[in-house]
Amino acid sequence: MTGWVVIAGLGPGAPDMVTPEITAALRDATDVVGYIPYVRRITPRDGLRLHESDNRVEIDRAQHALQMAAEGKRVVVVSSGDPGVFAMASAVFEALEHGPETWRSLDVRVLPGITAMLAAAAASGAPLGHDFCAINLSDNLKPWNVIEKRLRLSVEADFAMAFYNPRSKSRPDGFGAVLKILRETCEPQRVLIFARAVSTPEQEINVVFLCDAKPEMADMRTVVLVGSSLTRVIDCDAKQIVYTPRSVSQ
Amino acid sequence: MTGWVVIAGLGPGAPDMVTPEITAALRDATDVVGYIPYVRRITPRDGLRLHESDNRVEIDRAQHALQMAAEGKRVVVVSSGDPGVFAMASAVFEALEHGPETWRSLDVRVLPGITAMLAAAAASGAPLGHDFCAINLSDNLKPWNVIEKRLRLSVEADFAMAFYNPRSKSRPDGFGAVLKILRETCEPQRVLIFARAVSTPEQEINVVFLCDAKPEMADMRTVVLVGSSLTRVIDCDAKQIVYTPRSVSQ
Repeated sequence: MTGWVVIAGLGPGAPDMVTPEITAALRDATDVVGYIPYVRRITPRDGLRLHESDNRVEIDRAQHALQMAAEGKRVVVVSSGDPGVFAMASAVFEALEHGPETWRSLDVRVLPGITAMLAAAAASGAPLGHDFCAINLSDNLKPWNVIEKRLRLSVEADFAMAFYNPRSKSRPDGFGAVLKILRETCEPQRVLIFARAVSTPEQEINVVFLCDAKPEMADMRTVVLVGSSLTRVIDCDAKQIVYTPRSVSQ
Repeated sequence: MTGWVVIAGLGPGAPDMVTPEITAALRDATDVVGYIPYVRRITPRDGLRLHESDNRVEIDRAQHALQMAAEGKRVVVVSSGDPGVFAMASAVFEALEHGPETWRSLDVRVLPGITAMLAAAAASGAPLGHDFCAINLSDNLKPWNVIEKRLRLSVEADFAMAFYNPRSKSRPDGFGAVLKILRETCEPQRVLIFARAVSTPEQEINVVFLCDAKPEMADMRTVVLVGSSLTRVIDCDAKQIVYTPRSVSQ
């Protein structure tokens, strides 16, 4: 039996945002590995072993997946969103690069998914409709000064911005510092979107101006989008639509 | 009959990267509008009118879709990739904002799709596995000096970068200027990926160092990814894998 590893993105939560190629990979798999809440999204069946692991053990999980593939198993590593955006794909390749030489002959593929910022953007209009950047605000894996530098340069570039992992119980204060930098560098009417649990029954979309934004509006299930200086809000009958125009004038 | 507009992302090309929610919307639609090659990806059926339009008439197409919805039709506006990333969603909201007041009561939804940069990243490893930005290199809708400024600030921020619309027949020279700026600001061994026709039978993934990159490596079907200064290449038996590590050290 020839083993493989597929690193698959389950999207933000809605079952009908999972692509058919990922559904097919799960049908062919012998083993699924991933962070507990993502593995719980997989329907159990005979012949499929589910391996749940805790947060912050990404490299252990990646090694486990590669080892099982080397033994002939067909392994799906599940991420939420897209596996290449602040998720498991980089961890698997880190483990592969530093692992046994034989792992370099393994069949390892990444299958893309709908990442949180694009689902959040779709739910609120088209705030990322012009040039934009994506920044992970967690300082677990990089120093705060790198985050601050990137934030200031992104404002200067007038990118729309997507912030992943804005705030968690172990990092309650960093997002307040981010808002402070935005207040120093952007106009008070800059548009922010707090998108929580996008595409799930608990979805909440909160459109606010920068002057009204508060750190508590974000939690670990939130992705925060920040408009560029040109981003607009349309008041419609049922909701507000946020979009960034395609053009920048001369 | 209550009309609606769904702005749907068909993904980069592979049918099994189209999400089930988009397949369902197409099943319920009376009309599909879009740029010719995207409309041709839709399977014709009785009761479904296909409206093909040329490139660069996005606002006309958006107005047409909104007008049909106002008349009670169920309209899917098709984009390739994700409709919110350099595609039709912003155009529809521009048309809505400047159109008749009655359009503000229409049911208009965006359904996300797999955008080209994420499919290209998946096909080559995980080059966007850390903070990154997405820049449209076309100067049809913004002046060149904005592109240049964003490019230089993104290099300074040490983002990985995704370039959409790097080069076309009508813009043969701009991408050469982009490479020149990258050569002035990045090390010669910076990793570039030219990903052409991703997920289709014509897919080509070309991994090169900046010192070896040439403008002719890109065409209008190419998305170009540029690694950060930390992006790595693993030589595997079957191919090269490119990934950006999750960590930045102190």
